[in-house]
Amino acid sequence: MDDPDQPAAPAIQARVAASFERQGLMAHLGARLGHIGPGRVHILLPERPELTQQNGYFHAGATSAIADSAGGYAAYTLFPEDTSVLTVEYKINLLAPAEGDHLEAVGTVLKPGRTLTVCRLDVFGVRGEQRKLIAAGQQTLIQVAGRPER
Amino acid sequence: MDDPDQPAAPAIQARVAASFERQGLMAHLGARLGHIGPGRVHILLPERPELTQQNGYFHAGATSAIADSAGGYAAYTLFPEDTSVLTVEYKINLLAPAEGDHLEAVGTVLKPGRTLTVCRLDVFGVRGEQRKLIAAGQQTLIQVAGRPER
Amino acid sequence: MDDPDQPAAPAIQARVAASFERQGLMAHLGARLGHIGPGRVHILLPERPELTQQNGYFHAGATSAIADSAGGYAAYTLFPEDTSVLTVEYKINLLAPAEGDHLEAVGTVLKPGRTLTVCRLDVFGVRGEQRKLIAAGQQTLIQVAGRPER
Amino acid sequence: MDDPDQPAAPAIQARVAASFERQGLMAHLGARLGHIGPGRVHILLPERPELTQQNGYFHAGATSAIADSAGGYAAYTLFPEDTSVLTVEYKINLLAPAEGDHLEAVGTVLKPGRTLTVCRLDVFGVRGEQRKLIAAGQQTLIQVAGRPER
Repeated sequence: MDDPDQPAAPAIQARVAASFERQGLMAHLGARLGHIGPGRVHILLPERPELTQQNGYFHAGATSAIADSAGGYAAYTLFPEDTSVLTVEYKINLLAPAEGDHLEAVGTVLKPGRTLTVCRLDVFGVRGEQRKLIAAGQQTLIQVAGRPER
Repeated sequence: MDDPDQPAAPAIQARVAASFERQGLMAHLGARLGHIGPGRVHILLPERPELTQQNGYFHAGATSAIADSAGGYAAYTLFPEDTSVLTVEYKINLLAPAEGDHLEAVGTVLKPGRTLTVCRLDVFGVRGEQRKLIAAGQQTLIQVAGRPER
Repeated sequence: MDDPDQPAAPAIQARVAASFERQGLMAHLGARLGHIGPGRVHILLPERPELTQQNGYFHAGATSAIADSAGGYAAYTLFPEDTSVLTVEYKINLLAPAEGDHLEAVGTVLKPGRTLTVCRLDVFGVRGEQRKLIAAGQQTLIQVAGRPER
Repeated sequence: MDDPDQPAAPAIQARVAASFERQGLMAHLGARLGHIGPGRVHILLPERPELTQQNGYFHAGATSAIADSAGGYAAYTLFPEDTSVLTVEYKINLLAPAEGDHLEAVGTVLKPGRTLTVCRLDVFGVRGEQRKLIAAGQQTLIQVAGRPER
């Protein structure tokens, strides 16, 4: 695998960005793509009252939504062109109250595969210079062949 | 435990409803509370373009958000008055494309406890009379004592 | 799916039993097969000092081993003849101290599939007439085609 | 947290070793303790026919048993003296066939806490100089106060 901290090839970045834009939920939450590397994708989610749980922190559903998409796109960067990606399952631990100017979800491929890919999911709460791990998880994805997204 | 298919006591229903209304994300997604029983809560989420993933189905993040809240409130119905509930972790399998007029998440307490409570999570895609299981999961919650929500 | 509480066809029962006997770990732990139904398999594990954790209860590894095999064989009862089964992942909550004359793990297919199958896992501690749920989980399995076990 | 790659204080190492020896299952499987650092514990499991699944690889139950114990002891190295540790739940992905001269499970504390601690679990198959990640997971543990193990 290439260095996931480097930018992915432009065609791959474009493919991820096009798919991200088709996700109505990401726009509705106010999420945006960050780094797109081979086997690693970041998604940012700025703080908004529309994203809270009952105590004013980010809702676990918002945290999970960007973690799930970050992992899915991390896997997708390694898939052939005429395929799409679906989440099979994931597990996430909410380690600390999810707060910050924004959340940053990082999906990283742990084990690529022709059928199944496994990703690690890390979500950070970012406030100015401070960056704190607020959730961590693990996700299984499946490559669906012969069915490009559009 | 009382029958979870029966309505919970009015004071408990009111407590759940008040907490639900403090969750900015539930309103932003368009979710609403359904049945509130002792150890069981349903949450409904009508179909909207704002909730989609890249293929037009409900996004796993939307599915998870209502599943997480349904399980959290199912646990909360069994908690003493001066406590609050936090999700420790959950795991969810996405069993089929999440589609329907609306999704219905059902959280059910599997094992209540003074510190930790474990719930089953089931999410159905409902189209007219048809009701199909589209996701299933398991969740661990913690009771936070001496810290009522408001 | 046929009624999982009914016995599976004799050929299927024989196929599960033959595979179970190839699992060195099951014999080493002292586990034995119980009910084999279409989409449901039980495995029993009698109490022994060789299976304990540090407090004298069954070790989570023993609990998990029979839960994993029960789910795997539950899936296997639904697979075509020239295939084998592998566990992709599972998650298990240990709900109560694992104690009893024996443990009984029950694997039940929740969602069958051509590639992936998802099972529920329940483990009971049984002491005489008493039967208590001591662990619950969820498991993803993959059907490996064209590779019979022997 | 101190450097987990350094050895833990001798008293902590002794406490982990004493608890490990009380686990009947670890001896029965043939597992032994490796590195004990603050927040990190390794457990080794040599290959034996008694540990196999139906294809001759290590059984997922064996893999999980040492992963669970490694995580539990990693947490335990950070706990006060008069406490004990219990696994709340874990999730594990089996990434590749579990084979090698021995397996090596590495439990690492991701988030310590007074009540709950979360660990990462990595299991490697080791054959001579080769070391391959064959399983990865995440685990939640609870610190039980006022109840030392013996």
